[in-house]
Amino acid sequence: MTAPLFDTICFVGIGLINSSLARAVRKLGLARRLTSLDCDPEACRVALELGVVDSASADPAAEVAGAGLVVLGTPVGAMEAVTQAIAPYLASGAIVSDVGSVKTAVIRDVEPFLPEGVHFVPGHPIAGTEFSGPAAGFAELFQGRWCILTPQAHTDVQATARVRALWEAVGSTVEEMDPAHHDRVLAVTSHLPHLIAYTIVGTANDLEGVMEQEVIKFSASGFRDFTRIAASDPIMWRDIFLNNKEAVLELLQRFTEDLTALQRSIRWGEGEVLEKHFTKTRAIRRAIIDAKQDR
Amino acid sequence: MTAPLFDTICFVGIGLINSSLARAVRKLGLARRLTSLDCDPEACRVALELGVVDSASADPAAEVAGAGLVVLGTPVGAMEAVTQAIAPYLASGAIVSDVGSVKTAVIRDVEPFLPEGVHFVPGHPIAGTEFSGPAAGFAELFQGRWCILTPQAHTDVQATARVRALWEAVGSTVEEMDPAHHDRVLAVTSHLPHLIAYTIVGTANDLEGVMEQEVIKFSASGFRDFTRIAASDPIMWRDIFLNNKEAVLELLQRFTEDLTALQRSIRWGEGEVLEKHFTKTRAIRRAIIDAKQDR
Repeated sequence: MTAPLFDTICFVGIGLINSSLARAVRKLGLARRLTSLDCDPEACRVALELGVVDSASADPAAEVAGAGLVVLGTPVGAMEAVTQAIAPYLASGAIVSDVGSVKTAVIRDVEPFLPEGVHFVPGHPIAGTEFSGPAAGFAELFQGRWCILTPQAHTDVQATARVRALWEAVGSTVEEMDPAHHDRVLAVTSHLPHLIAYTIVGTANDLEGVMEQEVIKFSASGFRDFTRIAASDPIMWRDIFLNNKEAVLELLQRFTEDLTALQRSIRWGEGEVLEKHFTKTRAIRRAIIDAKQDR
Repeated sequence: MTAPLFDTICFVGIGLINSSLARAVRKLGLARRLTSLDCDPEACRVALELGVVDSASADPAAEVAGAGLVVLGTPVGAMEAVTQAIAPYLASGAIVSDVGSVKTAVIRDVEPFLPEGVHFVPGHPIAGTEFSGPAAGFAELFQGRWCILTPQAHTDVQATARVRALWEAVGSTVEEMDPAHHDRVLAVTSHLPHLIAYTIVGTANDLEGVMEQEVIKFSASGFRDFTRIAASDPIMWRDIFLNNKEAVLELLQRFTEDLTALQRSIRWGEGEVLEKHFTKTRAIRRAIIDAKQDR
């Protein structure tokens, strides 16, 4: 047991990420009391039944009041409304953080609604699975993973340090980054890959002449790697794309250009161009394995 | 030990697939003698050193003569040359099969060069990893996987039955299919996914402002699922795209249309359209898990 970093932590939205964080916090004794604010009674029931938190309901007065740290884990499109709902119950000196996959939009939606004396430390743990909900969480999710914090010039240094300590305690390596840069990096490493995966799975599904059951049967040949991420939470991803629009659209443009070039090489039988491109991409995979981010 | 199905099996090209098949055949005692014809002395050395085959060289007279089954496991672009090289040494009644990822082109390149009395049974095991070469193979690769055979109207029924028995013995479920249909199904489940993965990994790599080291660090958020298949053998994939051109190009067209539609929905903030699409793709992943093809 580590010394507690907080007395009470409130998890707003008890899905995969927040329920995993709650499990890790409990396991390591990083807080004395864990609560959850969630508008879904079923999520609250499951979280309580699994002992992930001590208290869970849709009542901000009951769950948020007295929390030294409040972690926003809702889809990013809900952050503004949620912040407005909890603001009246935030104690002065309390820290609000989040686990949203976009940072510029979250800062835009959260910060203006926080009362004086409440510190906001935007964060994003680079971890997850294709499963959702409180039952899908597990305490080890963040071990050996990165967690990005995007504090701003005016962010309280002590508050940032305490949030960093929490993520380091659950096994993550923390990196601080400018919010806009975060959104650009994640557009490449996460948002575009998910959009592509969603697209190709849809394309395959709509294909006449090839039965869906055939696509499923023979998916081991590559397709299944796309379906894993195309199974991620639809609401969460809808909100990510709508809230990181510019970076995603710019990248999509580049991706389409590159795909068109390869398409042309196939059409014209430019074997050397294809081989050269395919060889280059190999090196990146090796680097990911070396960086131990391959599982 | 099962009863041997063949006296001698010759593996032409001792890479991931053929070396895995050789290991399984040996482990199960499905043949008395295993040989390999490979133009790469290093591959022959490794295959011999690992005891994958009893004899390996670049000499068709030594390796092919006397084989009751010859399995072509070279990149599909090399099948024609390889067939011409081995044809003089093929015994009458011998069976030639292959493990190529495209079937129409392989039939076009192999069948015309086979002597009278030699039976050709085109095949494609739906199994593999992103690694290549004889050292990457393992006997269990085909367990619980599908193997597609694409015999034609004139293909000897006995020959097809013996090749089917071999794949079933190593743990695969065999399905017979029309070659053109195979090429269309695999374009969806394998060829397009690989092309997309190769493209996005290249796009990420060329992105200024985002460092390659950042892409690698944060790849756990989706990108890494693409890098795995983008690490596959470049020559093998070059040949697949050049030899299944029509099906791949047609699919690319559909994929691009679908991607453009999602892109437009993001640009115009059509949240409901995105959510609907993302929800649909989830069901396919579930089906793949149910079909036990998810690992």
